[in-house]
Amino acid sequence: MTGRTEPMTVTQIAELAGVSVPTVSRVINGRSDVSPRTRALVEEVIREHGFRRLKKPGAKAALLELVFHELEGAYAMEMIKGVERVADENGLAVVLSEMHGHTPGMSWIEGVLARRPIGVIAVFSGLTPEQRDQIRSRDIPFVLVDPTGDPGHEFPSVVASNWSGGFSATRHLLDLGHQRIATITGPSRMLSSRARLDGYRAAMDDARTPITPDLIYEGTFLPEDGLIHGRTLLALPDRPTAVVTHNDLQALGLYQAAAEAGLRIPDDLSVIGFDNLPITAWVTPPLTTIHQPLTEMAAAAATLAIALGRGETPTHHRLELATELITRASTAPPT
Amino acid sequence: MTGRTEPMTVTQIAELAGVSVPTVSRVINGRSDVSPRTRALVEEVIREHGFRRLKKPGAKAALLELVFHELEGAYAMEMIKGVERVADENGLAVVLSEMHGHTPGMSWIEGVLARRPIGVIAVFSGLTPEQRDQIRSRDIPFVLVDPTGDPGHEFPSVVASNWSGGFSATRHLLDLGHQRIATITGPSRMLSSRARLDGYRAAMDDARTPITPDLIYEGTFLPEDGLIHGRTLLALPDRPTAVVTHNDLQALGLYQAAAEAGLRIPDDLSVIGFDNLPITAWVTPPLTTIHQPLTEMAAAAATLAIALGRGETPTHHRLELATELITRASTAPPT
Repeated sequence: MTGRTEPMTVTQIAELAGVSVPTVSRVINGRSDVSPRTRALVEEVIREHGFRRLKKPGAKAALLELVFHELEGAYAMEMIKGVERVADENGLAVVLSEMHGHTPGMSWIEGVLARRPIGVIAVFSGLTPEQRDQIRSRDIPFVLVDPTGDPGHEFPSVVASNWSGGFSATRHLLDLGHQRIATITGPSRMLSSRARLDGYRAAMDDARTPITPDLIYEGTFLPEDGLIHGRTLLALPDRPTAVVTHNDLQALGLYQAAAEAGLRIPDDLSVIGFDNLPITAWVTPPLTTIHQPLTEMAAAAATLAIALGRGETPTHHRLELATELITRASTAPPT
Repeated sequence: MTGRTEPMTVTQIAELAGVSVPTVSRVINGRSDVSPRTRALVEEVIREHGFRRLKKPGAKAALLELVFHELEGAYAMEMIKGVERVADENGLAVVLSEMHGHTPGMSWIEGVLARRPIGVIAVFSGLTPEQRDQIRSRDIPFVLVDPTGDPGHEFPSVVASNWSGGFSATRHLLDLGHQRIATITGPSRMLSSRARLDGYRAAMDDARTPITPDLIYEGTFLPEDGLIHGRTLLALPDRPTAVVTHNDLQALGLYQAAAEAGLRIPDDLSVIGFDNLPITAWVTPPLTTIHQPLTEMAAAAATLAIALGRGETPTHHRLELATELITRASTAPPT
């Protein structure tokens, strides 16, 4: 890879790649009528040298793109509401899509480039290095919400204060008098989950409460995590009296494990969730949980994308919004 | 209103309304730079005489519009997944919006007309007579899913077999041996809810089981319905041993009312939901419910809209997809 110089025009890129100017345009605009080989060649030149778009005022569509890794559940709906609100205030429509499962030959990013939106908000999604290059070489603002891995400094991002959330959840249980506090985590490769686990460890250490290996279980953010790991930990000779989960669905799975074991919540077992999905006020008993401001995070990302699209420089490249303990009826002092 | 004749061209409409041709175009294309008075005048002429669009092949954007009355909860997410799937298979992107809450002066329909999508899918939404006229006068296919009121025959629609769902739910409880079976309904103005209630009545009549007025409670499809009406019906001297709700959220509210009253589900009270939202497998006890094929309904509507957009004539103007009893752990014989 050569050092970065002045970004190239379409004509310069065409010359260097040995293809026609219309072919370069087709690649840049995400058209599908280019062979994969030619596309790769042109992308390689753009990646190496950068690309200077000839500004066409008003050429962008009044659209905001919201992309999920997978469209599922109440978590996604809370995010959608935030982006819809900001889009609506700005006279924009929201195009909603999933990263995976697209028809072969037309990836989500090619669709985005063809639509020319004001900006793109990606939730919970890691990008491949190739996708990063494609995004970087175009002038479409790209903002990450709750990114899986470290987004680095190339793209702005919005996250929740996950460490503080893990800390508050654990501190709440310690304050109630619990000592044997287990935790069911998300995948360890996800930074949000690692931050929550670190918050748990910090609160336990801070209270000089020992963490034994049989108290930590890794899951995948599914209710099954709570059921399966719950069965294991509730069968321990010295079973925990409280569990910190990493999302509300895991907590619901744990409710089932407790019911199976004939244990009552919160009398025999305290359970705390993470996210504060609307449904958690309506489970029995209502779930104590850590509120993650999903709607506000998505709204902040949309606001940031629109500002970037207007050529403004954001004051913050990375926003961290506060989490908050919501005390309901699933936690109580140990008996 | 005069009788319908040949639809008019833009020029004829302009002449009759006494405005310029570009003004008529602005109204037709949903632009906001037209005075409300002029817009109303042009709309009136279009409503009376119809409008013949000069076909511009390829002028439509590769978009499907999905419009909700209100974006909320798992019900909406199940619908979104169905439209996304079909859109993706057809190389289309999905624009998601809410009917209410739009910035003044730019209604959702004007946004739709400006974007020129392949088709529009509206979920659970009544249209005003004016909106019906606006939609009818353009050549954008419009399909209703789970419409609030009778969609009539002007627009194709997709519904679930609500009557059968209400019947199956009630029959299931009768088969278990219940006699005192209450029901908590949705708003009586909604046809889906009225059909479910009629199914309940039919099953009760069929089993020669009396329905007393203290067994029927009207709600608004919220969990609060189950909590508040549940408190009332569980305090009756001759309290019911089973309840048919009109959606899963109401059933969860009823779980709370039962817990408050110290009653166990299903030992002391059988509860049956409606929708089969993913979360219902993970509440305690897992909810017996009527599966409404929300994803398939939305997918069918999207397929229909695309077919209409291609100029095809649908074989069915109104599709009714089957509901199904899902037996879990919240129903049992009365003790």
